[in-house]
Amino acid sequence: QRQRDERPTIENFKGIQYTGDDSTFYINFRFRMQSRLKYTSLSGNDFGAESFEARIRRLRLRMDGYIYTPKLSYSIQLGFTRGDQDYDDTDVPNIVRDAVIFYNFTDNFYVAFGQNKLPGNRQRVNSSGELQFAERSLVNATFNIDRDFGIKAYYSPKIGDVPLHFKAAISTGEGRVANVTDDGLAYTGRAEFLPLGEFTNEGDYYEGDLEYEETPKVAFGGGYSFNDRTTRSGGQTGKYLTAPLTLKTSFYDAIFKYRGWAYQIEYMKRGADNPFSTDKEGEVAYTFKGQGVNQQLSYVLNKDSGYELAGRYTWIKPHQDIRAFERQTEIVELGLTKYFRAHRLKLQLNTHYQTKDGVYQTGYDGNNWGATFQIELGI
Amino acid sequence: QRQRDERPTIENFKGIQYTGDDSTFYINFRFRMQSRLKYTSLSGNDFGAESFEARIRRLRLRMDGYIYTPKLSYSIQLGFTRGDQDYDDTDVPNIVRDAVIFYNFTDNFYVAFGQNKLPGNRQRVNSSGELQFAERSLVNATFNIDRDFGIKAYYSPKIGDVPLHFKAAISTGEGRVANVTDDGLAYTGRAEFLPLGEFTNEGDYYEGDLEYEETPKVAFGGGYSFNDRTTRSGGQTGKYLTAPLTLKTSFYDAIFKYRGWAYQIEYMKRGADNPFSTDKEGEVAYTFKGQGVNQQLSYVLNKDSGYELAGRYTWIKPHQDIRAFERQTEIVELGLTKYFRAHRLKLQLNTHYQTKDGVYQTGYDGNNWGATFQIELGI
Amino acid sequence: QRQRDERPTIENFKGIQYTGDDSTFYINFRFRMQSRLKYTSLSGNDFGAESFEARIRRLRLRMDGYIYTPKLSYSIQLGFTRGDQDYDDTDVPNIVRDAVIFYNFTDNFYVAFGQNKLPGNRQRVNSSGELQFAERSLVNATFNIDRDFGIKAYYSPKIGDVPLHFKAAISTGEGRVANVTDDGLAYTGRAEFLPLGEFTNEGDYYEGDLEYEETPKVAFGGGYSFNDRTTRSGGQTGKYLTAPLTLKTSFYDAIFKYRGWAYQIEYMKRGADNPFSTDKEGEVAYTFKGQGVNQQLSYVLNKDSGYELAGRYTWIKPHQDIRAFERQTEIVELGLTKYFRAHRLKLQLNTHYQTKDGVYQTGYDGNNWGATFQIELGI
Repeated sequence: QRQRDERPTIENFKGIQYTGDDSTFYINFRFRMQSRLKYTSLSGNDFGAESFEARIRRLRLRMDGYIYTPKLSYSIQLGFTRGDQDYDDTDVPNIVRDAVIFYNFTDNFYVAFGQNKLPGNRQRVNSSGELQFAERSLVNATFNIDRDFGIKAYYSPKIGDVPLHFKAAISTGEGRVANVTDDGLAYTGRAEFLPLGEFTNEGDYYEGDLEYEETPKVAFGGGYSFNDRTTRSGGQTGKYLTAPLTLKTSFYDAIFKYRGWAYQIEYMKRGADNPFSTDKEGEVAYTFKGQGVNQQLSYVLNKDSGYELAGRYTWIKPHQDIRAFERQTEIVELGLTKYFRAHRLKLQLNTHYQTKDGVYQTGYDGNNWGATFQIELGI
Repeated sequence: QRQRDERPTIENFKGIQYTGDDSTFYINFRFRMQSRLKYTSLSGNDFGAESFEARIRRLRLRMDGYIYTPKLSYSIQLGFTRGDQDYDDTDVPNIVRDAVIFYNFTDNFYVAFGQNKLPGNRQRVNSSGELQFAERSLVNATFNIDRDFGIKAYYSPKIGDVPLHFKAAISTGEGRVANVTDDGLAYTGRAEFLPLGEFTNEGDYYEGDLEYEETPKVAFGGGYSFNDRTTRSGGQTGKYLTAPLTLKTSFYDAIFKYRGWAYQIEYMKRGADNPFSTDKEGEVAYTFKGQGVNQQLSYVLNKDSGYELAGRYTWIKPHQDIRAFERQTEIVELGLTKYFRAHRLKLQLNTHYQTKDGVYQTGYDGNNWGATFQIELGI
Repeated sequence: QRQRDERPTIENFKGIQYTGDDSTFYINFRFRMQSRLKYTSLSGNDFGAESFEARIRRLRLRMDGYIYTPKLSYSIQLGFTRGDQDYDDTDVPNIVRDAVIFYNFTDNFYVAFGQNKLPGNRQRVNSSGELQFAERSLVNATFNIDRDFGIKAYYSPKIGDVPLHFKAAISTGEGRVANVTDDGLAYTGRAEFLPLGEFTNEGDYYEGDLEYEETPKVAFGGGYSFNDRTTRSGGQTGKYLTAPLTLKTSFYDAIFKYRGWAYQIEYMKRGADNPFSTDKEGEVAYTFKGQGVNQQLSYVLNKDSGYELAGRYTWIKPHQDIRAFERQTEIVELGLTKYFRAHRLKLQLNTHYQTKDGVYQTGYDGNNWGATFQIELGI
């Protein structure tokens, strides 16, 4: 079982393992970290450094296991870096990422109570430790619905040889920072469909075809989130709003893998009847109303050497309601990854060109170049 | 040995254990978490939701053990949730709960140096992982003296078959947030008396008679805390004060257990010559001067099934000095708990009715209803 | 291998160890804590308590090991106390201390990528768990260059029997809090020279001659740090500045050990063309421009009993540019340490006299006395 951040990873994913006396509990302890150096140019034709992102981007401890009976499993994840804590947006050190209890009625029907990722877009549910670029796409950053506290259900029937996945959640709608919420909750649903059968080793939830699928595999997914009267600009993420907004997010995605090739696409759209939140002093905040598409294509050069080449094209477009504040952005990115121990230990080198308003001339205001070097290390 | 948060739990309480080469150290690693959903009504006769508390209430890591010699033991506890950090009151992320070294002169005389719970009221010293309701009582929340850094001594003689416990502490008086303190320290003393002998498995410090005591057992306790010129509204807890206050807290409590029945009562009273702290701008803060009583009665339906029914009646009354700011509050609460693995894994369902000013009519201003669902899971 | 905080400690330093199946990873887990009580007098001749420092000064978890191959090692250290988080200066909870990956080309040439200590003055690189006084000196506190994210290289050749160490780093210059930096980076270099050969058990990086060197051992070191346009008053540490400053720090140090005697000295000097940073509102901040010397002499009374006597003389002098804000300070300190399990478990008793402006009369303004009791416990 791969890590898909929607259930504990207690098989085939061995960190530090411990089983209690008389098998009354099991725990699998893991950690991982990402060291990152990223250069961004001043503009499209001035290669001076606008800034360097130079930091431990992620440092996580994770404990998965079961207690009392394997039917009752848990997943705990703590994040310790400044970026992990969502501190700059919330002014609260949110160290707890996942803390959730699962009850597994059967192998393909389980429910969760606690805090973990919502069943949103594929790239977000995918662990940040299973990415082929150093960071998720701008589409994901702009529209994803992140983590939330609540009740979730997961059901995975099969029609003949075709696996289906249905996921649903009712949650607070304000993300990890919330202690208390009003009655404006968030409702999320998602369905997935794998017409050519299961991916090897749950490969629909990690990037790159490291398994070299012998036969083509594809997964389609789609979902919808209705976040009733949230108090944060991105729903579960973002700055606080003084007046609540209701956000409607839809997402469609697909992933295809075959003999070292992997292609994935996701489309996301956020709607809001009124994207603006105005407080009593007249100060205006807004949510990013609009849409975006991300596509990634990659090829593992040779299964044994572990080198992968990848390309990415990302496009986001603000709705005309917020055009005064946001511009259309496109990013073309190339990535070279060397996998030493699959996604546990890898070196990543990415380079990108970003354009504004669909204008690719290097002299255009807002365009820039960038390059990222990242090492991911974990157990 | 049960967990009583006043000494390390290194026997009969097995998490992940590790003994160093040649037995020079021992460590017992544990974690636990509480996932909570709580509904509170708008008023006594409007059942609309005033709010939902929906969060990981507690997520703790704990390490207990000894080093060099079993006489020298330690206890470390870290808390990672927003609520655990006492962040909203102090604006400092207080992750460290316990970090204390014990020197055990004999089995019944030991001293502590570091940060852990003060020997205050019984329910506070009781671990939050050993409660029969989802949360401690309002009496405890209002008057308890929490944790503090300092020097503590514990002495447990026996007169015939009657165990006695004496506990004393000198501490900073400002709680976990303090780095530096002035010479206004806190002095705490407590005595306990168990006329019918020891409880099975140290049952005087966990709630509910899960052990089904064969003979009646009872413990009486009383104590006093003098917190000289503290700078926080509750002494070791609460908001900062701009002018210091001296708090005098007394507490009396008892617990009785017999064949599945458990009854406990605690009375607490906080005095302060002047409960108000006024800063230079004339803004007024105050401490809750007053008193309260909490009583809990429970019955374990069947020792093997692990179902428990419990009732609780809580009453707090502000002193007339602060009546302009605080009202008398009473709460009646019912609880149903299913213990799967004693207090390590349990499901809790609580429901309450809260009244103000002693008026029980549902239409009275400030009255409300509530219900809580909580899962506790730990090793 | 001792802990020198510049490479992972994976030999001869056994905490909780775990090796993955088929030896694909190794992890050594440790923790340590310091409980401290420190009294400072109101003045040189008023022994009333000006304040008590009473707190858990440090509480750290540490994981060192390798993954994939012993050539690829890592070191992670988390600090949980308020003091460890550098929170009071930065208003950000900086829990991550070390998170760094090493690639060991050979035993004496390795590079690091990530966040750890810079190769600055000896006492700073020395772990806080290997000190003979409760705290590092005031010279270190005033001038040290702390930790930083970046790239470091370490090379240790030998000329005959004389070991040399060369260390260099390029880093962000703003310390642990930085996510993003401008192009004003920090450049650090250091060289060490051990003319009488290696110390037993890497004793040049822990204080006190606990090994009772049979033959005299000495190490000399010197280095320089150029921190281009930093935005914090101490470079990698201190309050934020609104206008950047460029800091130039030089350091020279030596340590000598022989038959229980240890002597160490370090000289540090910080230069800045203009030590003042003025913001738009005209508010002025400054860096401590000036110099200082710290000397420590100690004797282990008896190798088996583990008692050590130590004396320390510290002197810092501000440059005349900042004399309006800072005064010359001298501290004379005596220490008695009982080592139970070397530096892992020790009791420390320190007492000091501090003088201002070189005037030793007890009646002089700013002079004071102090005493510290500290227990360090760890594995």
